[in-house]
Amino acid sequence: MPPQDRTGAPAADASAQPPYLDPATPLDTRVTDLLSRMTPREKVGQLNQRMYGWDAYRRTPDGDFELTEALYAETERFAGLGALYGLMRADAWSGVEHGRGPGAEDSADLADLVQRHVLERSRLGIPALFVEEVPHGHMALDGTVLPVNLAVGATWDPDLYERAAAHAAAELRARGGHVALVSALDIARDPRWGRTEECFGEDPYLAARLTEALVRGMQGTRELFAADKAPVVLKHFAGQGATVGGRNSAESELGLRELHEIHLPAARAGVRAGAAAVMAAYNEVDGVPCSGNRALLTGILRDDWGFEGLVMADGLAVDRLARITGDKISAGALALNSGVDLSLWDEGFTHLEEAVERGLVSEETLDVAVARVLRLKFRLGLFDERSPTTAPPVGGRQVSTALARAAVTLLRNDGILPVPATVSRIAVIGPQSATAAHQSGDYTAPQPPGADASVLDALRRLAPPGIDIRHAPGCSLTGDDLSGIPEAIAEAASCDLAVLVLGGSSARTAGTVFDANGAALTAVSEMTCGEGVDLAGLRLGAAQYALLDAVVATGTPTAVVLIQGRPHVVPDSGGAVLTAWYPGPWGGDAIAEVLLGLADPTGRLPVSVPRSVAQLPVYYNHKDTEYGAYVDESAEPLHSFGHGLSYTSFAYGTPRLVGSAVEVDVTNTGRRHGRAVVQVYLRRLITPVWPRTLELCAFEGVNLAPGERRTVSLSFDVPPGAGAVEIRVAESARAALTAAPLVLDLRDRPQSFTAPEETPL
Amino acid sequence: MPPQDRTGAPAADASAQPPYLDPATPLDTRVTDLLSRMTPREKVGQLNQRMYGWDAYRRTPDGDFELTEALYAETERFAGLGALYGLMRADAWSGVEHGRGPGAEDSADLADLVQRHVLERSRLGIPALFVEEVPHGHMALDGTVLPVNLAVGATWDPDLYERAAAHAAAELRARGGHVALVSALDIARDPRWGRTEECFGEDPYLAARLTEALVRGMQGTRELFAADKAPVVLKHFAGQGATVGGRNSAESELGLRELHEIHLPAARAGVRAGAAAVMAAYNEVDGVPCSGNRALLTGILRDDWGFEGLVMADGLAVDRLARITGDKISAGALALNSGVDLSLWDEGFTHLEEAVERGLVSEETLDVAVARVLRLKFRLGLFDERSPTTAPPVGGRQVSTALARAAVTLLRNDGILPVPATVSRIAVIGPQSATAAHQSGDYTAPQPPGADASVLDALRRLAPPGIDIRHAPGCSLTGDDLSGIPEAIAEAASCDLAVLVLGGSSARTAGTVFDANGAALTAVSEMTCGEGVDLAGLRLGAAQYALLDAVVATGTPTAVVLIQGRPHVVPDSGGAVLTAWYPGPWGGDAIAEVLLGLADPTGRLPVSVPRSVAQLPVYYNHKDTEYGAYVDESAEPLHSFGHGLSYTSFAYGTPRLVGSAVEVDVTNTGRRHGRAVVQVYLRRLITPVWPRTLELCAFEGVNLAPGERRTVSLSFDVPPGAGAVEIRVAESARAALTAAPLVLDLRDRPQSFTAPEETPL
Repeated sequence: MPPQDRTGAPAADASAQPPYLDPATPLDTRVTDLLSRMTPREKVGQLNQRMYGWDAYRRTPDGDFELTEALYAETERFAGLGALYGLMRADAWSGVEHGRGPGAEDSADLADLVQRHVLERSRLGIPALFVEEVPHGHMALDGTVLPVNLAVGATWDPDLYERAAAHAAAELRARGGHVALVSALDIARDPRWGRTEECFGEDPYLAARLTEALVRGMQGTRELFAADKAPVVLKHFAGQGATVGGRNSAESELGLRELHEIHLPAARAGVRAGAAAVMAAYNEVDGVPCSGNRALLTGILRDDWGFEGLVMADGLAVDRLARITGDKISAGALALNSGVDLSLWDEGFTHLEEAVERGLVSEETLDVAVARVLRLKFRLGLFDERSPTTAPPVGGRQVSTALARAAVTLLRNDGILPVPATVSRIAVIGPQSATAAHQSGDYTAPQPPGADASVLDALRRLAPPGIDIRHAPGCSLTGDDLSGIPEAIAEAASCDLAVLVLGGSSARTAGTVFDANGAALTAVSEMTCGEGVDLAGLRLGAAQYALLDAVVATGTPTAVVLIQGRPHVVPDSGGAVLTAWYPGPWGGDAIAEVLLGLADPTGRLPVSVPRSVAQLPVYYNHKDTEYGAYVDESAEPLHSFGHGLSYTSFAYGTPRLVGSAVEVDVTNTGRRHGRAVVQVYLRRLITPVWPRTLELCAFEGVNLAPGERRTVSLSFDVPPGAGAVEIRVAESARAALTAAPLVLDLRDRPQSFTAPEETPL
Repeated sequence: MPPQDRTGAPAADASAQPPYLDPATPLDTRVTDLLSRMTPREKVGQLNQRMYGWDAYRRTPDGDFELTEALYAETERFAGLGALYGLMRADAWSGVEHGRGPGAEDSADLADLVQRHVLERSRLGIPALFVEEVPHGHMALDGTVLPVNLAVGATWDPDLYERAAAHAAAELRARGGHVALVSALDIARDPRWGRTEECFGEDPYLAARLTEALVRGMQGTRELFAADKAPVVLKHFAGQGATVGGRNSAESELGLRELHEIHLPAARAGVRAGAAAVMAAYNEVDGVPCSGNRALLTGILRDDWGFEGLVMADGLAVDRLARITGDKISAGALALNSGVDLSLWDEGFTHLEEAVERGLVSEETLDVAVARVLRLKFRLGLFDERSPTTAPPVGGRQVSTALARAAVTLLRNDGILPVPATVSRIAVIGPQSATAAHQSGDYTAPQPPGADASVLDALRRLAPPGIDIRHAPGCSLTGDDLSGIPEAIAEAASCDLAVLVLGGSSARTAGTVFDANGAALTAVSEMTCGEGVDLAGLRLGAAQYALLDAVVATGTPTAVVLIQGRPHVVPDSGGAVLTAWYPGPWGGDAIAEVLLGLADPTGRLPVSVPRSVAQLPVYYNHKDTEYGAYVDESAEPLHSFGHGLSYTSFAYGTPRLVGSAVEVDVTNTGRRHGRAVVQVYLRRLITPVWPRTLELCAFEGVNLAPGERRTVSLSFDVPPGAGAVEIRVAESARAALTAAPLVLDLRDRPQSFTAPEETPL
């Protein structure tokens, strides 16, 4: 394609075209050239992202979009627009729903309308970035909803997730969006935290592998993004999964080693994979808030890791710094000096011109941040191509269902699953059984009615002909109304099998009251999870426990299915227990396939399931200390990280070390196809820093036909500084505790037992 | 007294006496001189403290003490003996009880017997240090038991505690003991931890003031300790109160700022007050175990704070380092190189000669540690005077009861206390009501029968004539046996007032199984607290809750008294609730006096009392973050730090700032004498590090007669780096949240809002 000017800038002949507008100019030169032409006001404009995107447009009576005075004021104020957040966001907070907001068919037109306006207002023809929430699929009308990250963690399948991420990016770009905000970096260390569902789990290695997959899938690997690829903002950086008490945005008391070992590996992996951007988190780490934390945003991220992308602050996180600086101008200066490039909604960053004048920040620092924003726009080709050049991808439902299917985790099975041929009548019970409304987690756009699949829908559709599927809800998700239980008992008692679908909900409704950043301030009646919905007791609604007891007490074999955004505390009763996390709109299909044996349960726990809130924290990768039990309760979880049953059985040969890889033969010893997830745990023996009992260091899923044997080779990294390590191959962290170790002695390397003063990484 | 040689060394005329034996020689010269004469084996001997003291002696059939082969072997091995732990220790673990162990009358003789033997075996006549547990009074037969530290924290009365500490030191020295091991540095951040009772509370400032009082009281201020003063080993250093999950000796993930702000101030205050020694804790801090932590033991303690005393490792803590070094010799080397001078029970330190030969430690490092041990012996005068020269102090019971009385904290009172004159019949109910066996906490020696005072004993003794005191136990401390409840209900129903004494127990019995360091491995039936007894659910025994409900349901006004080593979760029911923590053997007297109105309840909470374990942690001095509540439970405690009611009432005038002090008028507006505890909280406004919502920065107890007014002036330290602070005067942390603030603007000082890379202290 020949170089061309689609910026909407005043027409000029080719010879007068400035270098930054010429696609043939090297990227860095384009950035430098453009920057040199900008006024301070224009520069500051590039660093701001003040507006809610849904305030930029409205529908005219005849159904077209028109732009709002609010957008005009914003582009006037900043002589253009740096970035626009959430132009396509649809949810209860934005108030955008079907009929009002842009759908799959008209999003690109809306984006083009806005972009043309921005370019008109920009003297130099600088386009805006359209930044969208893509936590588990694009959070827009008609966006394909994927299972939440916790379910993705349960798949232990980075390749599958990479394909799903690629689908989401292609959808976003086809609709005119540019940049995807994706939770990936938070490590689930306290299930009381309402955003646990947004984590890949409790383990840094698993999260790192999935974060890499996310970046590869969404971005690809080219400097100039392909038309169906989207730069990712990895959030949140850092330590947000370890806030005190699981309280959202509270302090994180972590030391640097704990931060490096648990909370930074996913970010580091994402940076290595080429992530375009990182979001600075709300929380502080050991006293310094992330958005004002130069040691974190510049020291670790840029100086140590060589990150060259963009740092965006979380919504209003810069203004929050005024709590310690005394005013928002100095808050903005602190954030910019610390390494924040792009603000979201803050007032603090709008005053950066004044901050420069007052000497709080240097113009050089400002320029560096502006250059990073511009660079991303050039990498996206926004100066060269305005409209989407890619068609929307097809097969979203299949992609989403595949992930959901891979995530379904069988925690316990007394042999009642898969549903045997002898069963002729199934009672499908529970507040989650006949609705998909609570299957999708927080950050989900309104779904079109009738397009989803509940467990009841799916069982009716997929069960063999002749099986009688009966239903009673039993109770609601929350509250203690027991009036529906007798009917549920009657149905269960009359059937050969009960499928009891319990769980929580992060579904926001119109009754929810939101904070300025969209977090739920007051949970509506059915919310037990989601941002701002921290749950001290980890309990489901009271009636659900009564329903569970009552159904199990009928004596009918009962398969308990949990649809949830965190490991709730649920007694391990019934003949089988599965968790599907939030599997997305078509999760009912995935669950029904597993129940019926049309698919093997292949999920493995990405988090430990606690017995009670009293024993928190329960992550498997605690330090290897001599003590740890309570006198009134085990310190061990109910179900271990990595645990998940299959309908077939696997035998592992004796593992052997081959360099820094371990080889093991895995045989499917059962009669059904299945997927073994071979897990390799490392145990440091000689080390300058106190070790964890176990650390996941490699894993691989292996699909095996009955009787099939395969040799799997899993390479792992030897931790720096370790003098000797054990390697243990097992099917879960708990099994690894007693697995025979292979010792790898590294003591020919220079060792020191003087405790390090510096961080070990 | 003229210089003389009492070391038992071979007789020599004065002219041949080496300088180190001459009391007129300057102390440092004595140390250097002696060190220069020592062999490596003798040096290593000084750093070891291998034996359990109770293995050093036995009783002969006629009741005398004789020394054991075990002691002979030990003094042979080390050509003398550096230190002997627990010669007088008596408890279930040591198996020492009345009749076997040394009592008040013969301890000094035993100590002298051992010391004479040590001097005989020591070529240079170096006496041993006798190191004793004095956690709340000397843990020996006939030692005066004081209330546990948590009760001391509740007194908010450093002067009173200083007198009690002086008493304990005088007792120890009169019996021939030298060095007192005292818990003081652990900050109670998670009540699940079984050693919560050993903490002064959750607040660093309160703990620092009490640690200063401890050091002053036990040691005095002279370099050469007076005959009734004892060097203190402050334990544990550092961060042990913040181990993950409240699990004993588990990891502490704290960052350096959190460590400095919360966990180090007590140690720093103790060092400033002149503490002779510090004990390195079991736990690791952010990856580095305290006993192998040079940054902590040398960097912070010695280089930053100028500490010149001794560092002792906790029992077997050095050997535990072999987990990371691979063997005990290198473990010993790591500990010594990190700053540990004196070991307790470890094997690792016995191989230091070999470690020197292998180049793992230098002889200079060894010498420095030896010099510190020798210096302490010279400071104690052990080379100059062998036998105790002080008479045992009298009045132990009064000292202990005064502390207990000051600690009784009235949490709630519907007006039923003090017991009104109209009451004629009191039912004294509950498993703690008629026994003092569980009043004293962990680390308590066996008590002589009949010398103590339960609540029932004391009420019978102290209640006005004519009041009928009735009793039924109701239930046991643990278990769910409800069979005694009907009798208790009947008694309660027949009375005008019920006093229901519930609680926990740290009393060890012969059935307890101990770990190698004396921590309880399996709690016997009634233990719900103490070292190794971590309690996930914070629950009392199940029957106690049934008893509470049943007694309250009788309608008889009920005063609930809690005797406990941690804040258990107990519903706030009944007409009045008091906690006495573990008040010691005569705690019943203190409680009865308060119930009857013979004393005002003057205690204030040194820890927040949680509503449930689900909301942990609940300390008041959390960071000032915007969020914090749970959807299913308040994040605020049931009772706030600093809370405690009086029988009278106080009015506070408007506080005023006078320099860095705050002045306030306090008036007793009630009809009874009382003690106001004026609390001053600081709230940082402008600061480079994210601040806590509130920080206690000053307090003072003020005794006021009815109608009396006093002006109290409380000085406080302005935190370094703060640009502006608020000062709030209030009666508890919760009250301070809404107290009118005084703003102190410090912005004429140079400020920087660049986040600090270094620790702020």
